[in-house]
This record gives sequence, structure tokens and C-alpha cells, in this order.
Amino acid sequence: MAGSKYAYVRHFELPDPLLPATFIVCRLDGHSFHRFSDEHAFAKPNDERALKLMDRAAQSLMTEYKDIVLGFGESDEFSFLLRKTTNLYNRRHAKILTTLTSFFTSCYVFHWPQYFPDTPLRYPPSFDGRIVLYPNEREVRDYFSWRQADTHINNLYNTVFWALVQQGAQTTTEAHATLRGTLSKAKHEILFSRFRINYNEIFPRFRKGSVIVWEQIPDAPHDIGNSQDMVSTQDPSGDNAVENSEPSNDKDATSSSQPKQKQKLQVKPRTTIEIMHCDIIGDEFWQTRPYLLSG
Amino acid sequence: MAGSKYAYVRHFELPDPLLPATFIVCRLDGHSFHRFSDEHAFAKPNDERALKLMDRAAQSLMTEYKDIVLGFGESDEFSFLLRKTTNLYNRRHAKILTTLTSFFTSCYVFHWPQYFPDTPLRYPPSFDGRIVLYPNEREVRDYFSWRQADTHINNLYNTVFWALVQQGAQTTTEAHATLRGTLSKAKHEILFSRFRINYNEIFPRFRKGSVIVWEQIPDAPHDIGNSQDMVSTQDPSGDNAVENSEPSNDKDATSSSQPKQKQKLQVKPRTTIEIMHCDIIGDEFWQTRPYLLSG
Amino acid sequence: MAGSKYAYVRHFELPDPLLPATFIVCRLDGHSFHRFSDEHAFAKPNDERALKLMDRAAQSLMTEYKDIVLGFGESDEFSFLLRKTTNLYNRRHAKILTTLTSFFTSCYVFHWPQYFPDTPLRYPPSFDGRIVLYPNEREVRDYFSWRQADTHINNLYNTVFWALVQQGAQTTTEAHATLRGTLSKAKHEILFSRFRINYNEIFPRFRKGSVIVWEQIPDAPHDIGNSQDMVSTQDPSGDNAVENSEPSNDKDATSSSQPKQKQKLQVKPRTTIEIMHCDIIGDEFWQTRPYLLSG
Amino acid sequence: MAGSKYAYVRHFELPDPLLPATFIVCRLDGHSFHRFSDEHAFAKPNDERALKLMDRAAQSLMTEYKDIVLGFGESDEFSFLLRKTTNLYNRRHAKILTTLTSFFTSCYVFHWPQYFPDTPLRYPPSFDGRIVLYPNEREVRDYFSWRQADTHINNLYNTVFWALVQQGAQTTTEAHATLRGTLSKAKHEILFSRFRINYNEIFPRFRKGSVIVWEQIPDAPHDIGNSQDMVSTQDPSGDNAVENSEPSNDKDATSSSQPKQKQKLQVKPRTTIEIMHCDIIGDEFWQTRPYLLSG
Repeated sequence: MAGSKYAYVRHFELPDPLLPATFIVCRLDGHSFHRFSDEHAFAKPNDERALKLMDRAAQSLMTEYKDIVLGFGESDEFSFLLRKTTNLYNRRHAKILTTLTSFFTSCYVFHWPQYFPDTPLRYPPSFDGRIVLYPNEREVRDYFSWRQADTHINNLYNTVFWALVQQGAQTTTEAHATLRGTLSKAKHEILFSRFRINYNEIFPRFRKGSVIVWEQIPDAPHDIGNSQDMVSTQDPSGDNAVENSEPSNDKDATSSSQPKQKQKLQVKPRTTIEIMHCDIIGDEFWQTRPYLLSG
Repeated sequence: MAGSKYAYVRHFELPDPLLPATFIVCRLDGHSFHRFSDEHAFAKPNDERALKLMDRAAQSLMTEYKDIVLGFGESDEFSFLLRKTTNLYNRRHAKILTTLTSFFTSCYVFHWPQYFPDTPLRYPPSFDGRIVLYPNEREVRDYFSWRQADTHINNLYNTVFWALVQQGAQTTTEAHATLRGTLSKAKHEILFSRFRINYNEIFPRFRKGSVIVWEQIPDAPHDIGNSQDMVSTQDPSGDNAVENSEPSNDKDATSSSQPKQKQKLQVKPRTTIEIMHCDIIGDEFWQTRPYLLSG
Repeated sequence: MAGSKYAYVRHFELPDPLLPATFIVCRLDGHSFHRFSDEHAFAKPNDERALKLMDRAAQSLMTEYKDIVLGFGESDEFSFLLRKTTNLYNRRHAKILTTLTSFFTSCYVFHWPQYFPDTPLRYPPSFDGRIVLYPNEREVRDYFSWRQADTHINNLYNTVFWALVQQGAQTTTEAHATLRGTLSKAKHEILFSRFRINYNEIFPRFRKGSVIVWEQIPDAPHDIGNSQDMVSTQDPSGDNAVENSEPSNDKDATSSSQPKQKQKLQVKPRTTIEIMHCDIIGDEFWQTRPYLLSG
Repeated sequence: MAGSKYAYVRHFELPDPLLPATFIVCRLDGHSFHRFSDEHAFAKPNDERALKLMDRAAQSLMTEYKDIVLGFGESDEFSFLLRKTTNLYNRRHAKILTTLTSFFTSCYVFHWPQYFPDTPLRYPPSFDGRIVLYPNEREVRDYFSWRQADTHINNLYNTVFWALVQQGAQTTTEAHATLRGTLSKAKHEILFSRFRINYNEIFPRFRKGSVIVWEQIPDAPHDIGNSQDMVSTQDPSGDNAVENSEPSNDKDATSSSQPKQKQKLQVKPRTTIEIMHCDIIGDEFWQTRPYLLSG
């Protein structure tokens, strides 16, 4: 065969399996999104369209890769937890990492017009990705606590900062100076005393980030809306239907009646993807979803 | 600080530097592009629009990441060679790999409408990526020979196969049977005797793949059209101007007269990206471009 | 400085940290010990001197490296478990692996004359080593079960095999043929019916391998002799005293009365290394030593 | 099979191949040799016995592992260069690294009594090891230049330091103070003016370290004594014969007449291991031995 004398170069491709039976966390970060958000006139301190687009890309990724059991996003980053025992692509490091990064990126660009109908994309955005392994449940919990605590810290700062700039007529330099060294409590007070903003009444999406999980649907019509911070997922354009790659587990699809499956005694519970904005630092979130950390 | 008690989880992010002073090849492959090309009705055996879109994404990537000195593409894959001494992202493996994969993917989706104006993207395409290190020049040459030999083998087979199906009224099963075990020469003869196709007159793009390099521009107006297989890059839509991220090294930009630069004694030669469809297995391509393999 | 222009070569030394919070198992194997045992006329199927020398090297290693909490040896191999949270050498892979391998090897050669007083070492023996990471307790347990099950399988086979050869006058070829395809029960019967050997009465050391642990010493004179398979460690030559590196934790040293330490309220319990030949597949061994698998 | 339910734990052993076609350097360092040299009363600044023992262990290692083409040693460290194309143990990282480290250690302990007949080993010495990959010849040369420059720097300092202490009656603190900040030239002058020592007349072994190579033997009786810094290897005890593992390539063996081999037209040149103390920073050493860096 013509190519065979060159095929030896394949031997330089070295194996890169990830340690078995270990939690895989994949985190994606927007590349130069400071500039990107400026160029596309993102609202400050939070642009709801941009956040919903991130959620949508994450939701599509989790629909395509069912071994991702949890996603958490804030700003221009998203973290995904894969099942401890996943055998996706035989746990090949580069294969998993690049496939998830590429698909997320593709979804972001693909869905952009739905979320920014009046703002054409000026240039192609990109994300970097990394995989981190966690051997123990405690570390997985602490990883997501770390990200949500970061969300809180950043959002509180940014909320006060942009209030000072947008409503308080400070320059950005002055606003940074005002905030330098202030504790959390002081920031709350500035917000309330000067701008009548009660931080705790701000959108949960901004304060808590986005939490995406596969939820099991009880037989009775499910109602998970009793959490104060939970917001049901909304597709702004309603055009899910065009997306051929994501049919099988769409919320709509799975909530329709499926008589044949029920006759099979329905061993596997029906599931749906939920986007929430709830606390994931405390125990409740995890205790009510033991499957997130189980093998 | 609120998040500090969780910050220890960062210690699980392990360093992943690539060996210094080694050639880095990054290869991207379309994910499930068999289905993707069916869903978007790609022409068989080659869809020129799709190939030009791949070239465009590659060209954008090389414009953004100047340490990529060579690209080679065929079908739904593209390989990129980084300078042996590149210090891009401190040679961090995952950072380089995901950034290139993500940006290429983003460009592919972003530029899709220019190349498929009548075919809306039905769902988000994705690519996987891998990095392979080559310590020696010989192996880099053989790597690219391997890919171009593969291009030849695949394209010859596909060209005959689809001629048998589209013009010879064979089923795909029959066409595979016809070709089973045939040598290259026999395939050429089937093409010519039955379909009057001289394989060597087929588009170089299909036979040779796409070769993308940074070329130095001589002071005199350059002319690279003397190679039979070389095809100058053509932008089908001519709307390069909208792409803010890629202004500085466009062919048009750099080939315009720049008197001010010349006054500075022009230490650094002007360069431009060229897309060619030439042989890269022989010595000539490499001997005329010693900078590809130099440190 | 004279050497500085060359010092850049250090940058090719890449970091190799082991994943934190994961159990580290280091297994050493004799290199070409089939030949080595022949050259030094090891008794078949088991040479007690050689096994005790392995135990001694392992004991010395565990005395020197206190983060090793468990050792298990059979034949010419030994496995060591490091504490999940050990920070030995900042968890650098090659540093830990080579240091343990080298020290064990050194101890083996150093102590050889004590165990083989009449057999001079003919050439330098060596060991290879590997590190395997286990994220979960279950896998650590199963790893050691795997090794002890292997001990049982090999020893039963070898015991019957050498009985057939040494007492049954079979050639080695005949003995292999006799045993081909036999189940465990059949092997027991051959042993008993033909050679009056009750396998279960064979030395626990041969049947169970060697288990080495740091045991906490209760205040009252400890008695761990109630396990049928436990054999107290015996130094054949009694010349521990010459070994300066290993004084502090010898059984004899720590079991002597130490009034001064007791006055300090003895926060840290006294410990001693024990060599046992007990079952480690069942739960009892692990349940009575929870510190083996705790952080 | 009894052990099979546990055998899954083998899947946690991950592959670790070294990049093909890359030079492998393995460096071994004495572990806590400051204490070790004190405990065994090594002469200061250099103990010839200890250095010769290191050389002997290195020579034995290179006799056993023929893919090591060069060794360089100083003080308590030794570096070994493996052929770029070696396929030793399929280039498995841990296997190569631990096997070399272990065998070197074993040789050191094994041969100790020959070099220290009056100094019993008080405890088992050990070495750590690391592997560094170098893709290019230049870096291999610079690596060995780095080590030999280090040898020079250290030895010059130590020579003056110990002259000040042993002959100049300074305390070690005073001697360090005397030398602080001095350049090379000043150190030479102190040596000569105060102690009548011409540094360049000191043993080449101390100034240059030990260089060990496989040399090809010309048909005529070879003579390598024309290099000023070259010292032929001397076995202090002459008991090579006991060492069964190293018969085939001993100097004595290969320099004896071998009429049968000569009749076979002697395609493969005879080789012998040479220990030298010559310059390896300049070009001559490498130019006369092109096989060191060739594939």
C-alpha cells in the first residue's frame, strides 16, 4: 500500500488513558472574553442573553453526552462532571477533552442568533478546556463549591462596581478604589444605602450561576419548582425542533406519554435536563441526587 | 476570602508541558462527519464548498496563531505543524490542544453560511483533536507524506467508486465489489475506459489536499502561479472585511504598498498565507521553505 | 557562572506529580529471578531464607519510609501501600518510585549474608518497580486480594509440582502434564493421597505470603499471637545493631519500657512493625486496622 | 480462576511509553550521600575508592544494558545516555528507569567490599533516578557539558576549601568565607600561592569526572593511551571472574584472540568498555565517536 512506508509515524501517538474509577471534571473557559463581551456590547455586570446562551450550549452538550451528570456555569466558564465510571471513548484524555470543547464551542456559535437576534457575531469566539481528576466525592463537592463561591464573590463585586459606575457616576478607576479592601457586608450596604438594591433579590441566575442536571421524572407530573432559586429552563426561540442531534432526551420528548415503554415495566426512569440556579454548596442538593456521585 | 477553603481543589490540576524543542503536530478530525455530510447533502466524492470551508477555518486559525507554520487538509481532517521552538501557552498540552480545536470549530460554524449559502446548518458539527510530538525533521516530513498519500489513496478509490455508482448505475455494494483488491493502475483504467476520466486532470484540490503555508513576499510582486498544482486562494464571498480578528496578515493587506515600513529597513520580511494543492512528499516543497523545519 | 549556558537543559525535566488524595501502590518484582534462584540454589518450591530476606528488605523499607502503611510479599515480588494523603517527595512519581526501588534493592544485597551465610552472592540481583494509583478503598482491598489469591494459586501448583518431581520421580515435563487442567481440589488430593501432605498444614508463609504492617502497641503487653496464621518476625542473625538506619522502630526497641515518653502523656501511640502471614482477603484484617485506608 | 474477580485492578496500570526516536538520559543521584560519606569516612575533597566504585557500578550497568552508549559520573551521581532508537523494554518509562536504578544500586553494594576492603558498609545506600528526554543532538551535548562544567566548578571549590581546612587550619566556616564571591582565577591562585597546588595537575578523574563509552577495537592492538586525560580502567581486585552476569564484553574477554569470529569475516566490530577522564565539552570527543549520537 502506498502510504505504508510512512505509517510508522503513528507510533508517536502515545496512549493517554485517564485513571479509571475517578471523577472527571471538564472545565471550559471563554478565550479572551473580556474583549469578546466588549465587541458584542454585553450588558454589565451580567448579560442575561449571554448567560442563557452558555446554558444552552451546556444543555446541548449534556444531551449529546449522557455521561455528563452535572454542569455548572458562571460568566464565560462552564464545568462538567462525568460519571466516575464513565467509559466514554475508553477514557482517552485528549479525545474526551477535545470532543467536549469542540461541541460546546460549536453549539455556542450555532445558537448565537437565537439569543442575540440583533447582534451579528463579529468573529469566531473560542474556549479552552481542561480535565481535572478527582478521586473522592468530597473533592467533587468542594470543586463545585469553589466555583459557586467564586460566582458569588465575583458577582457581588461586579454588581456594586457597575452600580457605582452606571448609577453612581464614578469612573471605573474610582469604583475600584471605592471597593478596595471592602468586606462582603460593606458591599451589601453600599448597594442598599446608595442604590436601594437588595442583593439577595437579584436574579438567582446572577448570584448562583447555572446548575444543570439530569433529573428523574416521577410518574406523576413532576414539580420541582418548590426551590426558591430554581428557574425552569426556557428556550427563547422555541425552535428546538430544528436541532436534529438532540431529539431523544428533550424535555418535551420525554414528558410526552410513552405507552409502549410503560408496558415494559419501565425499568429505567425517564429523565429530563433541568437548568436551575440553586445552592450547590450545602448538602441538600447532593443528598437529594445521590446518583450524581454514585458509581 | 469566602472561596479559599475550597481552593485546594486546584492542586488536582496537574502540569502537562510538552517536551521542549520538539515539533508539535495537531490533527483535527470531523466528528461523525459521515452523517454530517449526508445530512447536509455534500456532493460525492468531493464537495468543493466543504473543502473550501475547511481551508478557510484552517487559514483563520493560522492567522490567529502565527506559530503554526504549515497546515495540511483533506476531507474532514486538518493537520497543523507548530514551530519546533514555539512557546505558545508555555507549551501546555491541554491549553494548546483545546484552544486550536475550539477556534477551528468556531471558524467552521461561523463561516458556514459563506460557503453553503443555500444550506442552513442543521446541527452543530464538532471535531476531535490530538497532539503528536515529533523529535526529528524526517518524521515531520513523513507525517505529512503519510497524510498526503492517504489523500491520494482515498480520493482515487472514492472517485472510481462514485463514478461507478453515479455514472455506471452500480449499487454501492456492487461498486465496492468491483473495486475489491484492485491496484491503483486498474482504478485509473476503469476511470478512463468506462468514464473518460483522466484521473490526473482532476482538481488538484481533490488529489493533493490543501497545503497552507506562510510565504515570504519578495519585494517584487510575487508570482506563485508557476506550479501546475498550485491554486491561488479564493474567497467565495469576498467578505473578508467583516472578520475583525484576522486583519493584519491578509494577502491583500500585505501585498499593498507600505512605504512607511520600507523606510524602517524592513528587517522582518512581509508574509502572506497561501493555500496550495501541491505535492509535499517530494523534496522541492521543503527545500524551498527551509523555515518550516528550522528552529 | 561557567555552567550556566548549558543549564537550559534542565527545562527538559518535566514535572510528574501523582494525583493527590489517591492511594499509591508500589510493586517491586525480581528481575530474572528464575535464573537468580537457580544460580543460588534456592530450595523448591519455596526457599524460606529467600522469603525472609525479602521480608527483611521490605521491613527496612517501611522503617525508613513511614508513609508506607502496608507491605505484601510473595516469591520475588513485594507490594507497598502508601497513605492516601502522603506528601512524600511532593508526590513526584519518579522520585518516589526510584527511591523505594533502590533502597529495597540495596537492603536485599546488604542483608544477603545474614540469610545466606553459606551462599555468596554470585552477581548483583535487581528489581523493577511500578506505581499504580487507586482512587478508592475497594480497589486497594481488591489489589491486595489479587496478590494474595495469586500467592495461593502459584503456591498450590508449585507445591504439587515439586512433590511430583522431588518425591514422585516425575520429570518436570511429566509433572506439568499431570497437573494440566486440574482444579484446586484435585491438587489437594494428589498432595494428600500420594505424598501425605495436608496442604493446609503447610507453612502459612508459603500459603499466605507476608503481610507487613505498622501496628499500634497497646499499653498492656500486646499479644497478637491469636491468629493461627501469624508468625512473629525473627531476625536470623540478631545483628540488627549494626544497622544504623533502622534503630528507632524496631520491635525490640519500642517494646522496652520507655518511662520518659509515658510522662509526655504519649499522644502518639507507640508502633511496631509486624510481619504476619494471615488472610487479607476477608474483612477482619482491614476492619481491625482502619488506619490503613483512612486519610 | 480464583484470582480473576480481582484481576480488574490491573486496568489501573497505565501505559507510559517514552516518545520514540528521542535520546533518553537517565541520571542517578546518591540519596543522602552527605551523611553516607561521613559515616564511611570518605576522604575529602575526593575519595578515589568511592569514585572508582561508582565507575564500576556504571561499567557493570553498561555491560548489562548495551543500549547505554555513554556514561558520565562525578561525585555521587551518574548520567547514562541510551541510543536514540533503543527499544529497551518497549521504551516503557518506569520499567527502564527502575531497572537501571536498581541494578546500579545493586552493583554498588555488591562491589563495595572490593573498593572498601577495610570499611564495612554500615547501612544500605540508595540512589534516586530520573529520565530526561532530549530530541536533538545539540541538547545531548549540552546536557553532558552541563554535568562536566558542574564537575569542574564543584571540584575547584572543594579542592580549595579542603586545602584551607586541612592544610590552612581554617574552620569550615572560615573557609567558606574566604571563598565567598571569588572567581575561578582567584581560587587557582589561592591553591598555588598558599598550598603549592597546581590545579591542572590534579587527577583528571577529579577534574573531569568519569566518561564511560563502548569503544570499537581496531584489528591491530588498540592503543588509547595517547590522550593526556585518559586513564585506563583498573580493577582493584582482579576478581571480575566471579561476576557471571558480565562475561561477554569484558575487556579481557574481547581483547583475547578469537580466531573463530575472525573467520566469520567479523561483520560486527569488537567493542570494549573504556573509562576515561577526558574533556567532553569540546567537539573532539564527539566527532571521533559519531555512533554516540547516531540513530
